[in-house]
Amino acid sequence: MGFSEDNLKGFILALMSSLFIGASFIIKKKGLRRAAAASGVRAGTGGFSYLLEPLWWLGMITMIIGEVANFVAYAFAPAVLVTPLGALSIIVSAVLAQFILNEKLHQLGILGCVMCIAGSVVIVIHAPQEHPITSVQEICSMATQPAFLLYVASVIVLVFILIFHFAPQCGHSNVLVFTGICSLMGSLSVMSVKALGTALKLTFEGNNQLLYPETWFFVFIVATCVITQMNYLNKALDTFNTAVVSPIYYVMFTSLTILASVIMFKDWDGQSVGNIISEICGFIVVLSGTILLHTTKDFERSSSFRGFLFRLFLFDFH
Amino acid sequence: MGFSEDNLKGFILALMSSLFIGASFIIKKKGLRRAAAASGVRAGTGGFSYLLEPLWWLGMITMIIGEVANFVAYAFAPAVLVTPLGALSIIVSAVLAQFILNEKLHQLGILGCVMCIAGSVVIVIHAPQEHPITSVQEICSMATQPAFLLYVASVIVLVFILIFHFAPQCGHSNVLVFTGICSLMGSLSVMSVKALGTALKLTFEGNNQLLYPETWFFVFIVATCVITQMNYLNKALDTFNTAVVSPIYYVMFTSLTILASVIMFKDWDGQSVGNIISEICGFIVVLSGTILLHTTKDFERSSSFRGFLFRLFLFDFH
Repeated sequence: MGFSEDNLKGFILALMSSLFIGASFIIKKKGLRRAAAASGVRAGTGGFSYLLEPLWWLGMITMIIGEVANFVAYAFAPAVLVTPLGALSIIVSAVLAQFILNEKLHQLGILGCVMCIAGSVVIVIHAPQEHPITSVQEICSMATQPAFLLYVASVIVLVFILIFHFAPQCGHSNVLVFTGICSLMGSLSVMSVKALGTALKLTFEGNNQLLYPETWFFVFIVATCVITQMNYLNKALDTFNTAVVSPIYYVMFTSLTILASVIMFKDWDGQSVGNIISEICGFIVVLSGTILLHTTKDFERSSSFRGFLFRLFLFDFH
Repeated sequence: MGFSEDNLKGFILALMSSLFIGASFIIKKKGLRRAAAASGVRAGTGGFSYLLEPLWWLGMITMIIGEVANFVAYAFAPAVLVTPLGALSIIVSAVLAQFILNEKLHQLGILGCVMCIAGSVVIVIHAPQEHPITSVQEICSMATQPAFLLYVASVIVLVFILIFHFAPQCGHSNVLVFTGICSLMGSLSVMSVKALGTALKLTFEGNNQLLYPETWFFVFIVATCVITQMNYLNKALDTFNTAVVSPIYYVMFTSLTILASVIMFKDWDGQSVGNIISEICGFIVVLSGTILLHTTKDFERSSSFRGFLFRLFLFDFH
């Protein structure tokens, strides 16, 4: 449970990343609304007037800052800590939407937020410390251990099956195909991003890693994985509703990333059983909170729970 | 995080207690239904035919076994561990109701169950170990420390204010009055039950505590607290819907009991900050799960989340 300085840095960066990414959705949406009001044409119907709206660009910049913070966080703290904290961006955008866009949050959604926070706290408390990495070769030897190679091979085989067999057949009718491809590739993206981030961190610390071909190999892997992942994420979002894609994608992507990180970085070696179980429980709680937040998004506010609290404080029982 | 043998005994007893109490609700309900079918008069409308129904009596016996197991659990493990595990009886009865009474559980209710379990696991892992108690005098000196006397005094004052000022005025319109009285008294019941249970445990181990007046004093306190608590719980259940009373009562009763136990038995002394925070998070998760389970009890099954899973596996998206 020792919380090293590097873990703390990674944690703060992950938190900031969630803040920025969560806020960026709201700022962009506000920009889109303002652009639509000014021009009378909505982005969904083909308008591009939002490109002239400074708020939309502010949202884009906020998002890029958030993604960079997320990238840097991976260089400091284990993926087991950084990835699940991504759920906090959902809370940030839900809370901001309530205040800025006047989109009302269902009371069960608030419960979902509370759970995401409680689960994140448990994860943070039990996050493993990372073994300090001193060179890109060390990462390479981690990436080429048999267990991790087996993981990578399985992922590639699965992705090929999904792309060439299932995608043409039921990619447009079953949401699991495209989101599955993104999530599988996403777990490799995070691992390579972490490798590259660590190499850059070492370089900034004066230990230049750009001289080694391994670093450039990781640049190539990051580009390949991220492009594949983004391509299929766009396909998933184009075909299905965001409210359906987001929780499924979050669950699969986070689970696979944790699995990959545990295999490659041996995050759980030397951890007590209690710690590992606590982490898994924290993760399950964050997942449940995310699912709750997403499924209650479209519930009417006047439903059971609201009435429940309402009656509780207005004394009109019986 | 060391899990002592006594904690393990207490944990198993608390688990068995939840199993028996959860099952008892279902057996009793089954008995009531069968009695109503046989006589044509329902218990709610004044029939007593259920007293001739063996199933109903089996339910009563099951409940008594469960309550005894719960009582004994307090003699072995700290209240911080035993009390929150009571939430598992709700899960047991929800699951059994699905299979035996064919009452369908809402999908968000299943999420509530998952959360209760995950939260309980976190609580169990971080439960403090108890300092072994060797005599009833030791418990007495714990009960008379200034901090705990202050707690008892505040509880008694609050209960008197609730009974004599609020109960006549708004006891029948505000659910917090009667449940507040039960919960406040309940926290004292648990503390005295724990004292008595420990005294009996020592007696069975050959260290006779029945010779001391302190033991009989605790018998008196247990009787007073439990009778007051049951009296006002019945009033609350008579006046308001069970689905409203149960979660409020569970939240207030469990929180106050943990507070009382932390003050009296110093459960959190010598615990690391991480452990305490994990326990509190686990407790918040169990509470959220309980609230979710109760509020979604009456939701229609065909709502958003069900549809969501349904569409997910039947491939009829778009």
